[in-house]
Amino acid sequence: MGKLEEVLKGIRPIDQDLYRKAQERLDSLTKPKGSLGRLEELARRYAAITRSLRPKLAKKHILLFAADHGVVEEGVSLYPREVTAQMVFNFLRGGAAINVLARQAGAQVEVVDVGVAFDFPELPGLRRAKVAAGTQNMAKGPAMSRQSAIAALEEGIDAAEAAIGKGADLLATGDMGIGNTTASSAILAVFSGLPASEVTGRGTGITDAIWAKKVQVIEQALRVNSPNPKDPVDVLSKIGGLEIAGIVGAALGAAFHRIPLILDGFISGAGGLIATRLHPPVGEYLFASHLSFEPGHKELLKLMNQRPLLNLDLRLGEGTGAILAMNLIEAAVRILTEMATFEEAGVSQEISR
Amino acid sequence: MGKLEEVLKGIRPIDQDLYRKAQERLDSLTKPKGSLGRLEELARRYAAITRSLRPKLAKKHILLFAADHGVVEEGVSLYPREVTAQMVFNFLRGGAAINVLARQAGAQVEVVDVGVAFDFPELPGLRRAKVAAGTQNMAKGPAMSRQSAIAALEEGIDAAEAAIGKGADLLATGDMGIGNTTASSAILAVFSGLPASEVTGRGTGITDAIWAKKVQVIEQALRVNSPNPKDPVDVLSKIGGLEIAGIVGAALGAAFHRIPLILDGFISGAGGLIATRLHPPVGEYLFASHLSFEPGHKELLKLMNQRPLLNLDLRLGEGTGAILAMNLIEAAVRILTEMATFEEAGVSQEISR
Repeated sequence: MGKLEEVLKGIRPIDQDLYRKAQERLDSLTKPKGSLGRLEELARRYAAITRSLRPKLAKKHILLFAADHGVVEEGVSLYPREVTAQMVFNFLRGGAAINVLARQAGAQVEVVDVGVAFDFPELPGLRRAKVAAGTQNMAKGPAMSRQSAIAALEEGIDAAEAAIGKGADLLATGDMGIGNTTASSAILAVFSGLPASEVTGRGTGITDAIWAKKVQVIEQALRVNSPNPKDPVDVLSKIGGLEIAGIVGAALGAAFHRIPLILDGFISGAGGLIATRLHPPVGEYLFASHLSFEPGHKELLKLMNQRPLLNLDLRLGEGTGAILAMNLIEAAVRILTEMATFEEAGVSQEISR
Repeated sequence: MGKLEEVLKGIRPIDQDLYRKAQERLDSLTKPKGSLGRLEELARRYAAITRSLRPKLAKKHILLFAADHGVVEEGVSLYPREVTAQMVFNFLRGGAAINVLARQAGAQVEVVDVGVAFDFPELPGLRRAKVAAGTQNMAKGPAMSRQSAIAALEEGIDAAEAAIGKGADLLATGDMGIGNTTASSAILAVFSGLPASEVTGRGTGITDAIWAKKVQVIEQALRVNSPNPKDPVDVLSKIGGLEIAGIVGAALGAAFHRIPLILDGFISGAGGLIATRLHPPVGEYLFASHLSFEPGHKELLKLMNQRPLLNLDLRLGEGTGAILAMNLIEAAVRILTEMATFEEAGVSQEISR
């Protein structure tokens, strides 16, 4: 049995008993019942995932999957392909948005090179897990072989397992890959059945002309490859990306080890969707951090039955939305574990109704 | 000239030149233009308020205004009036939700007793600024005299000035006062012209019967007092609250000293609305943290031209929403000051369009 099958077999639904016990605890704290709204929902689910009413949240870890996309040669992005590797160096030097926000959150950033078209030396903060030097152009044929997709997915599982092995209590995903909104829109088109024009956005900020080209390229990729929505790995390999495969794997690895994982925006969402299509209980371990400016993201979250925590018109990727939401999840866990009960504080409870 | 008049005269619009310069800086950083969405909006405004492209954000301070409400004798709340004082003790011992979240955010909580019906001794973390032992029952006459309203408002200015004097870079408001959603709904009804039933919610979670009573009490208070929407202090004194007056003062004091202030939810919003009605430029110094579960809050924010940062169905008060939003404002400031530029990072800019 391969690693992927083994992990899929080992993922269980979250603990309903802990879910209920967490609610009881929340109701005993010095606040009107339910008055912390979605924080209470986060706290309950976190307890049920980790099977603890006092979950530990000391080490936070961001897996930033990077890869290149052959489809960039069609002219779908505002930036040249080289920017993927240049940004990896920026991440490793600490100058990117994700580094700034991770320092604030006290989280570690690890860049996972699953498929950047650049040969990186060994560098601190970089996990070398390259499956290929980028995908092929999906407008002309499959982005990668089924074997490569599974290999990249298993690199994602390994990356999550390594972080968990080093003590990570909470994971988040991020992405870097010029051209990856094109792949994500294509994935969403397949699973939603919606036309490409409805699930395609402006990525980094493309013009009307490039947008029209992008829609046309996605339509062509779907026609050329006929990905099968009943077979998520088929979709991933034909019109996906190596970093998206890594994100799928990270989600599976986190769920297998009962570690909560925060999804960033549209690209991470495409990975999360594939993970839940492979095995629906995975969704219970995932937290959707924010609603991206990308128009397809809303539909994507609906397909996953996820309600995003933030809505800040972000469209950067890298894990920036996930790290901002991490603060809310930490807040929820702290409420569960640090607040005083009515009894402890000597506060009168509700007048009986 | 009284303190209030002096402060109102000294509040200036924020610096448009800094606003523009902050945008230029944001556009030079290693990210597609505008891709950090609302964080960029926060960063620009923060720079314009503080007149700095490298604003300091080391000391964060929450002013938690507490007071009692005479209208509680009408049976509009789920909790007895004593809970206000009991919760003040809970805040001072660090067991409440706001304490937990403030520890996480690295912010200091100061409880300002503007009108709790309990005689507190001197205690660390408590600012004694009592104007009266709670308001009168607004269903039978004015909640307080015009003089008391101004005194409580000036206590709010003083509290903000004291915190700023001790080095606070960023302020947030919170509230505690059993019955204070009733006062806030009444204030909103006056300024919006909407019927009480449309701006009244369930506060801490009241039943249908108590809700109907609450609406009726607000209608009666408006009839008995005829507050004049053209005279914000008249509204504040007749149907407001002492803690709401304190919040009005804190907003004015922050704006006078060019210090950003984050408003919590519905009660803080009622204070913020009165402050902007007294002097519209105050609004440029205020950040609306979240959209509360209280149905009137949306309308209230619309009247203030504010778009909330979070929407988490919170309805607790204390400053809990404000402190969660503080993280986003800090993130925005850090992006402005810590990220690398394209030039520094050696990253290619957009392909010319």
